[in-house]
Order: sequence, then C-alpha cells, then structure tokens
Amino acid sequence: MSLRRRLVGTAKRQLKQTLGPVVQRAMAPARAFLPPETWSLESRGGQGLFLEGVSLSQLAQEYGSPLHVVHLAALHRNADAFQAVPPGAAGGCEVYYSYKTNPVPGVLSALHARGVGAEVISAYELWLALKLGVAPERIVYNGPVKSDASIRESITRGIGLLAANHREELDVFSRHAAELGKRPRVAVRVTTMSGWTSQFGTPIAGGQAMAAYRQALASGNLDVVGLHAHRGELIRTEAELEGFVGAVLDFADELHRELGLDLEVLDLGGSLCTPTVEHIEQRDWRLNLTFQRDLPAPDFAAALSIERYVAKVVAQVEAHYAKKGRKRPRIFLEPGRAMTGNTQLLLGRVHALKDGGERTWAVLDMGINHAECVRNEYHQLFHVERPAAPAHRAYTVVGPICTPADTLYHAVRLPELKVGDTLAIMDAGAYFVPFGTSFSFPQPAIVGVEGGKVRRLRRAETHEDLITFDDLVPAAPARAAS
Amino acid sequence: MSLRRRLVGTAKRQLKQTLGPVVQRAMAPARAFLPPETWSLESRGGQGLFLEGVSLSQLAQEYGSPLHVVHLAALHRNADAFQAVPPGAAGGCEVYYSYKTNPVPGVLSALHARGVGAEVISAYELWLALKLGVAPERIVYNGPVKSDASIRESITRGIGLLAANHREELDVFSRHAAELGKRPRVAVRVTTMSGWTSQFGTPIAGGQAMAAYRQALASGNLDVVGLHAHRGELIRTEAELEGFVGAVLDFADELHRELGLDLEVLDLGGSLCTPTVEHIEQRDWRLNLTFQRDLPAPDFAAALSIERYVAKVVAQVEAHYAKKGRKRPRIFLEPGRAMTGNTQLLLGRVHALKDGGERTWAVLDMGINHAECVRNEYHQLFHVERPAAPAHRAYTVVGPICTPADTLYHAVRLPELKVGDTLAIMDAGAYFVPFGTSFSFPQPAIVGVEGGKVRRLRRAETHEDLITFDDLVPAAPARAAS
Repeated sequence: MSLRRRLVGTAKRQLKQTLGPVVQRAMAPARAFLPPETWSLESRGGQGLFLEGVSLSQLAQEYGSPLHVVHLAALHRNADAFQAVPPGAAGGCEVYYSYKTNPVPGVLSALHARGVGAEVISAYELWLALKLGVAPERIVYNGPVKSDASIRESITRGIGLLAANHREELDVFSRHAAELGKRPRVAVRVTTMSGWTSQFGTPIAGGQAMAAYRQALASGNLDVVGLHAHRGELIRTEAELEGFVGAVLDFADELHRELGLDLEVLDLGGSLCTPTVEHIEQRDWRLNLTFQRDLPAPDFAAALSIERYVAKVVAQVEAHYAKKGRKRPRIFLEPGRAMTGNTQLLLGRVHALKDGGERTWAVLDMGINHAECVRNEYHQLFHVERPAAPAHRAYTVVGPICTPADTLYHAVRLPELKVGDTLAIMDAGAYFVPFGTSFSFPQPAIVGVEGGKVRRLRRAETHEDLITFDDLVPAAPARAAS
Repeated sequence: MSLRRRLVGTAKRQLKQTLGPVVQRAMAPARAFLPPETWSLESRGGQGLFLEGVSLSQLAQEYGSPLHVVHLAALHRNADAFQAVPPGAAGGCEVYYSYKTNPVPGVLSALHARGVGAEVISAYELWLALKLGVAPERIVYNGPVKSDASIRESITRGIGLLAANHREELDVFSRHAAELGKRPRVAVRVTTMSGWTSQFGTPIAGGQAMAAYRQALASGNLDVVGLHAHRGELIRTEAELEGFVGAVLDFADELHRELGLDLEVLDLGGSLCTPTVEHIEQRDWRLNLTFQRDLPAPDFAAALSIERYVAKVVAQVEAHYAKKGRKRPRIFLEPGRAMTGNTQLLLGRVHALKDGGERTWAVLDMGINHAECVRNEYHQLFHVERPAAPAHRAYTVVGPICTPADTLYHAVRLPELKVGDTLAIMDAGAYFVPFGTSFSFPQPAIVGVEGGKVRRLRRAETHEDLITFDDLVPAAPARAAS
C-alpha cells in the first residue's frame, strides 16, 4: 500500500473519530430504544428479562443457544385482534395466516386452534395445512409456482380459494377442473397501480385484469368467486391502506358493471407492518456505519395497529357497498408479519469479544444464518441479564459464519458485554425461520412460552441431521501431507 | 394515484422503451455469453446439452427438478491443479478445502480421496471432517466461533493447525491446552493492510499482530507453528495476489527479526476467484434493470487460473526465502470457490411464462432459495434443450417463493422459452448449497456425474422431512368460516 493511500486512510479515520461524537449528539434520532414492556417483557432488578415469569437467561441455559422463543399469549392476542368484529360493523374479516412467514407447526397449530385459516403458496405448504388438520374450506392457495398435483388436490378437496397468480394459470386451473369434473372456487390476483407489478398478479391498468376475469368466466369450469390483491409495499398508515383498498373496490365495481360479477370474496392479502420493525433507510444506515450514530427506532405507537387496520378495512368496504346498495362481500385477510412478527424473539450468546481499538466486536453464536432480516430492518436488541444497565458503548455485533456479510448490527449501544452474556433480538417471528440456513452451524430449537410454562415446539438440528440425506461413501482418509 | 404521477410514469416508460434498444446496441458489453464448452458441456444438435454423454434434460427428468449436478472430473482437475508442484519449484502447496463453501459429503469425500485436506470453521464442520475419515493432521480449524468442546477435541486429536481468529482466542486455546496437557499446533490469523479488518484476524498494522504472537509464545502451552491470512477481497490478477503475499512475507520476516520465530507453516487462505463468475457492478446492474442491456460476462481467460496462482505463490515464497537464506515454510492454501465453484450446475424448469406486455416473466421452480448468489454475481444461464437457438428475447427470470426479491435475472436474453423447458445455472458449486433454504419448497437433490455415470450424492428433501424435528400437537381443525 502506498504512503499516500495510508495517509489518506489515517486522515479519514481521525476525521471520523473527531466527528463521530458530534454527529451522534447533534443528529441523534428521537427514539433509539424500545423498552422491554413493549413486548410484555419484565425487567427484574439483578435477574434480567422475564417473559411470563420465565427467565430468558435460564431458557437459553436449559434449551441451548441460540434459541427461538414464541410468546403464545401474544400470538393469541394478534389472532383475536384480526378476527374481532369492529364496533359498529356488520361483520369482521376472515383470516388466513401466511404460512411462508413463519412455517413452524407449533405456531401454525396455535393460530388454527384460535380460528385462523391457512394461506399457502406451495405444494409443501398445502400438504402441511392439511396435515395440521385445517379444513379445506379454510385454505387459500396462492403463489406463482403451484405443482399440477397440488392444484388437483386442492380442487378435489374443495379448498376455500384457489387464486391465479397470473392470467396464464387460469388455463391450467380450467384444464384440471374439467378433467376432475369439479368447479374450484377461484380468484384472480390483480395489482393496483400503487402496488407491485413484478411477477405477481395481473395489472388492473390497461384492462389486463378485466381480460383475465373475462377469460375465467368464459372457461365454464371455474367458479369465479373472488378478487385477490396485495399492496406489496408495507402498510404503516391509514392513508396507505385507504388508497390500496379504494383501488381494489373501484375494480370490483368495474367487474360488476362490465361483467355483472358480484364477488363473494374480497381477499385483501397482507402487507400490514410489524409496528416495532422498520426498514433501515440508506441515510440512517450510512450514519450508523460511518459515525456510529444510533439507528432510529420505529414510532410503533404511530403505526397502524391490527385493531385500527381491521376497523378501517371493514368500515371502508361496508361504506362502499352500502353506498352502492350491493351486498358486502366476505373480506379475507392474509396477514404474515403483522400476525407473528412481534410474537417471537431469538436468544443468542456472546461467544467472544474482539478488541479492535476504535471499536469492539461482539461475536455471537447467532448471525445471518438465523436472523437474515436484521441486515436491513430495525430490530430491538436487549442485553438479557442487564437490560437496564447504562449503554454507553457501541458494539459491532457479528455472527459465527465466516463472511463479513455476517454483521447483524454495525454499531449498537449496549450495556458493557462479557463473554457468555445473552442477547435477545426482538420481532423474530417473521422471515427469520424460513430464511434460516444450516450454514456451518445447525439450526436452533424453538420453544413456546404459554401461561408461564415452557413447551418445546421444534428441537435443534444435530450434526447427524445435516447429512441424513447424503449417500456417504466409505471413508477414504486423505493421504498424509508430503 | 394522481394524473400527474401517472403521466410521468407513462413518459418514463416510453423513454425507456425508446432508449432501450439504443442502449442495448451502443453500450453492448464485449462479452455477454460464455459458450457451453467452457464447462466441458457438449451441445448436440436437436438434443441439447450433455455432460460426459449424459443428457442434462434427461437428468432433470429422472432425478427431479430442481437438481444440483456435480461434475467430478472437473473437481479432480481443480484438486490436482492446486496440489501440483509448479515446474522449476522445490515443492508445491498443501491444500485444505473450505468446507463452508459447498459442504456436501459426496464432494468433500471426492476431494479427500484426491489428497485434499479439510478447512473447517465450526464444531459441526470439524465433526464432519472426522466423520468423513480425514486424518486429524490434515485438518485446519479457523473461524470466530469455536465451541469449547470442539477446541478440546481438536487439541486431543492433534489437528494440523488451530488458528486463532482474534487475539483473545489465544487465552482460550492456552487454557484448554494446559488442562489437557497437550501443546496444539497454533497459528494466528492476521490481516494485511489491503485485506479485511472486520471481525476476522488481528491487524499487522499498529503492532497488534506482533503483540498477539508475543502473547502466544509467552503462554508456554502453544506450539506456535503458523501464520494465517486471507486476502478477503477476491483475487483475480497476479498483482492482487503479489501485494497480498508480499505483505504476509514482510510480516513473517518481522516475526523472525523480532521474536526469532521461524514459521513452519504459511497459511495463505483462499480468496481465489472462480474465473467464470464475477460480482455485478452497480452500473451494469442499473443498465440491465433499466434498459435490459446484457450483463457483461467475465473475461475468464484473463482471470488468474489455479495453475498460475499456485505457480505465482510458490515462486514468490521460494524467491523470498532463498534471498533471505532461510528455509521455505510449508505453504497451506484454503481454496473454496476456486476449487468447487465451476464444478457444479443447477438445473430447473420453467414452470410458467407470464406475459407482462413490455416483458415476459419466466417463473422457475428454483429461485433465491437455492441460488442466492445469482442476485449479485454473473452466472451463465443456458437453455438446456436448445442452447444454440437464437436468443433475441430478454426474459425476467424469477423463482417460486412469494417475494419480489426472488428475481434471479432482471433481463437475460434466452432462446424462446416454453413451459417445461430446462435451464441450467452455471457455477453453482460455491455458496449455493450452504445458503440454501427450505423456504416454502423442499431443497433439491444433488447428483454426481463421473465417467459418464450418474450417482446420487444427496436425496431431495420430502415434505415430511421439513417437520421431522417438530413436536406436532394433535390436529385441531380451524373453526368453520362464520
């Protein structure tokens, strides 16, 4: 390396060190920490964090680290909130949990027991829903890749709704329906102007969605009962929700006007946010990376709650149909992250502390292999044993897999860490488990806490598990070093 | 959406459509396609692509799609190239394959049978190497998170090299060594100025690495035999390699001068590129996204080959020590992507074609769940049945999981596609399998082709496999829709 480059490097480093504290103070975000009570966690002086009287530190001790912990009461609360009939409304919504978001049977069964149906996007997920005892009429089947066998099974069983991801899929449905002599209950997935185009759905714009409906009705083999749409982009505010629902209602009117079609089902998909999670903006990310400025925590109280979301959806749909003098359709919702995001946390241990002069690296036994989402979303991090201790020091928190990409937090202020301390990543109930890999380390166990009792939902992978499907050849020792 | 926003949108779209063909022609990359022969694939007129006489189309038919295909002759060729003594050199290098890059027992065993050792970074990988019959002295143990039990096992077994990722780990090694009454063969991982700092290694700069060696020697419990370094950033040219090796040699001299330490082992890590793969530059990515301009294919002939890499390393090290009049140390290499990257391909099927007016989406049965790396690396894509047909049309190639992030190619020119066609993603032998997930779809099988014969290395996951570790509760049907 040249002397010049080295000098520039040193100058940059010193500038950063000098500016760092200034930036940290002057540009400090309004909120950089969400208190434990946000998740019904209790901080007991000297003993750390508890969930329904269960010590999180003890949990990691007993069940091993890392460990996923599901809070079943929170899951029930969310499920009930989604299914409640809002005050003053004629009815509520029918709710289908997005399996892909957190496909853990223990979680899914808990939701089903509470009355929630299944939204599946693959042959595997359809199989799983049926395996878990979900009644076929309580299953919605979406997604761009449905195997022929799974389409036939869903038609034979008479599932609640079979949604065509793209127009071309209607021909496939129609062919199987004709062969099986059954009329499946079908919806067409459409995209509103404000939503995604991409691989999902048929755009309302340009008359394409209308053409798809004409095609579906013309086939003669399909019972065209529904309209399906996702906003795609997350919904955090009433305005975002209203614009999306408005566009769907306008198209439903068009279907009525042009084709005389009265929809039985309006499936408004998912997209509702987890209030305590937010995508990290480029600017915040850069300030954090360069000057260790705290990441701003989401204003969770301002985000649309499940209750307000459901009330708003129902009010808007009911008002619309009342005005038109037509019967209000059944409203289907397919929540994913809003249902389970904030009902799970991930515990891990500080394996090592690496002193880097300007900074300290905290090396954990969990990384992007179990918590991929933390790379671009705000997730509150707690020191489990000393949550309330002063957090003056910024740590770079990294995982165990050998790549610099395995960085969970570039700079996060935490109480002084020691090797062996437990940390909790919050809101691990959406897209942590499905994006989990067995990269160099087996996947963690999952336990549920319910009424102060702990129940194992999934055991951790063992070393043997990772090669169960391999055809091992007889051991052939490598030749000794020459 | 306002009229104004809609007008702007339309104007933008029309500008793109008009400019697209101009940009595609005027700014066309020098190379946008690598021919099948690059990977020893044969294109038989009317029958598609063959590997050692085996039809790839047939393979997917027989073993299911998606499917990983390992080319064992290519694996052997790479293993031999890494271990060959370069012409005119006194000796060659000792090679330890980076397990994390492609931890498939069938691949690992093939490498071991060819004389390659194991570079492991976790308790699991250490267990696997021993399970596969690798002699302890042919194992190098790296990584920031080594469990106590695995450190003790590696000391008891007498593995070839135990490398301290950070200085603090030396104390851990020393404590276990004292307790076990054994002196492990230890290296210290250092970072050169041109390499990573991050969570890995102790910087040479500022005397930190020197202090770590003093500490290691002072402990009395460690047999300090080695120096360990990775360049981190990929090595594509001789200049990049030379700068890195030079920095390591300079530090080895310093160790000799200051501490009288003559290293037995110089472990130069990995970081050598796969010649046919290259990181996609921001600018190329944007042009591809906006104007469907072809992505430039890597100039693979210009990239450092394994042979030239090994020759250069050995020549530089031998010249250095000859000049200093000291004995040349053993050279360890830890190749990952350079060893296996180009020895594997991933087959998948076109499940659906979605006409989007301006573009066509090809929806595959494989996506980022099996081929995460394709999101930011150039990977040649072949139409298996008609590789040589004219490729005029640009497709957006997406996978099966329900997220817009599941886009493998934003715009790639391919022969006209039909549903059911097979596609092959090349260079799937590095970081495809370890970053694989079971996101809504089970993971694919892996087969090996050897001497024109096909052998199964790993079976595909079944639906049942995905819930084997779960504690299922008795089925509780969701209550019927109200």
